[in-house]
Amino acid sequence: MLSTLHEEIIVIDGNQINNWDREVFEELSAGGLTCVQATCAVWEDARGAVGTLGRWFQMFREHDDLIMHVRSVDDIVTAKTVGKVGIVLGFQNASPIEDDLSLVEVFHRLGIRVMQLTYNIQNHIGASCYEPNDAGLTRFGRAVVREMNHCGMLVDLSHVGERTSLDVIELSERPVAITHANPMWFYPSPRNKSDAVIRALADGGGVIGCTVYPNFIGGHETQLGDFCAMIERLVETIGIEHVAIGTDSTRKCTAEDLSWLRNGRWRFTNGQEPPSWPRWPEWFRSPADFPNITGGLLDRGFSRHDVEAIMGGNWLRLFKQTFEPMG
Amino acid sequence: MLSTLHEEIIVIDGNQINNWDREVFEELSAGGLTCVQATCAVWEDARGAVGTLGRWFQMFREHDDLIMHVRSVDDIVTAKTVGKVGIVLGFQNASPIEDDLSLVEVFHRLGIRVMQLTYNIQNHIGASCYEPNDAGLTRFGRAVVREMNHCGMLVDLSHVGERTSLDVIELSERPVAITHANPMWFYPSPRNKSDAVIRALADGGGVIGCTVYPNFIGGHETQLGDFCAMIERLVETIGIEHVAIGTDSTRKCTAEDLSWLRNGRWRFTNGQEPPSWPRWPEWFRSPADFPNITGGLLDRGFSRHDVEAIMGGNWLRLFKQTFEPMG
Repeated sequence: MLSTLHEEIIVIDGNQINNWDREVFEELSAGGLTCVQATCAVWEDARGAVGTLGRWFQMFREHDDLIMHVRSVDDIVTAKTVGKVGIVLGFQNASPIEDDLSLVEVFHRLGIRVMQLTYNIQNHIGASCYEPNDAGLTRFGRAVVREMNHCGMLVDLSHVGERTSLDVIELSERPVAITHANPMWFYPSPRNKSDAVIRALADGGGVIGCTVYPNFIGGHETQLGDFCAMIERLVETIGIEHVAIGTDSTRKCTAEDLSWLRNGRWRFTNGQEPPSWPRWPEWFRSPADFPNITGGLLDRGFSRHDVEAIMGGNWLRLFKQTFEPMG
Repeated sequence: MLSTLHEEIIVIDGNQINNWDREVFEELSAGGLTCVQATCAVWEDARGAVGTLGRWFQMFREHDDLIMHVRSVDDIVTAKTVGKVGIVLGFQNASPIEDDLSLVEVFHRLGIRVMQLTYNIQNHIGASCYEPNDAGLTRFGRAVVREMNHCGMLVDLSHVGERTSLDVIELSERPVAITHANPMWFYPSPRNKSDAVIRALADGGGVIGCTVYPNFIGGHETQLGDFCAMIERLVETIGIEHVAIGTDSTRKCTAEDLSWLRNGRWRFTNGQEPPSWPRWPEWFRSPADFPNITGGLLDRGFSRHDVEAIMGGNWLRLFKQTFEPMG
């Protein structure tokens, strides 16, 4: 039952931030993934992001047998049909658009379909979830959300602060996403989300991708059953159509990569040892373990229909609602 | 006869470098132009070019009633059908790709379909026509030409030096262009082209766009009849299918713009007065005068078929052969 169902359905991971190479693409394929939203920028400016996209386009040519660039729901369906892993390119920060509103369309034309408004520090758009004070969405931020709505770029609030998130949800004409976070009640981290934000997101038609990242589930010893129980309670609270998966997989990322993600150029590390990556749970050591989540949901008693929604169907619907330019 | 023919055929200008605004777009429309290859970069690096493209995408939205972005021959045919001026975006220098080969695909995806390999000074690809010595196409240059062939970006040699041009023509798997220059025998300027280059270009299936820029026709007093006689002799030499128009129109460009085009950042102007623009001939004061060229060719005795080829058909064929990625 498990392997058959997992193979049949469209499986989408709302976010991964791996150090991408052929072995990682093979893991995605082994995990039966139809589509992954891949992070292409965290602290990069426009030039840096353009360079990273250039390398992605090379990877699409080099690993054409395993992966394909997807820009629409039709492309994702094609990926499923031809048995490749579809890659949705996304940013985890608005740094690539700098202070230039016209770069939203530039990056949309290059295939960027998801942009998180802030990474781990406040920027010219709003506050991150780690700021002690959140003054909400700025004037430029309002223009960026409207332009993302217009061009067809999904707004991601995963690392965004509470007040800024609520402002965005109120303003956005299209539903938005939390691609990789859990409810605060499951594990208390600034990166997990309050009921207020999650309910507002769902009321606006949005989707939250539950993350397996160890620091946001309470460590590697947290069991698959606990993770699936969290999903069950979340579904009871906001409805089946608003819950999905966004693992935040960090395959092949080094300690230096983690230091870059955490500190960027904004904090001196003063010769400290680079931080170390947390240990992942046994039931999700890599994206190749994706079928375990499908299995866990079935064990929890979810119907086939509900598993299909959580494992990919809800992302697919949200992407359909947000990836095309407005007429 | 004139107005009817000019209105019926697809009219393409191989190059314009105006200071683009609504009035200029209205001039293109008044001139009955179906399509213009518009210069988006001369000295800009990747970041600068991305910013300029962002502004172009805004112009396409703002002046949607007059212009449209064209990326293929099908788009150009659509422009003719709906009565808009199609804009092919191009670079007059390889500076936007810097030393990053992957940026050829990035800019192709953004719509750039033509790139001149050098502007007015030598770069990492080859020599400009103004260099005293031309060492030919470099190793990086060979990689760039191959990548442009692969991605579907037309190589432009208008400002490129003699030996570099001959190397490119020999290497390129697809025909190449001189979008805006005249034969050296018509007027002796380093920017005009030797018989050797023009014949090699034509042998490889390429097209030369004859320019009206005053400095390359011998000044504003040169008559339309002389210009059309030049075209006639060129057609006799290399065949009707290799000759087209590329005016190098510079509408609304200021003296400061001319200083930037000539000197960029590579030469200090030491407080000199900015140079002044040459006076354009009475028969081509702006792109609105485009029907005069059609008239001049008819007066010279060209057939309807030949006028159609020179005024747009030849560019259309070359674009068809060069704008799509290789399979």
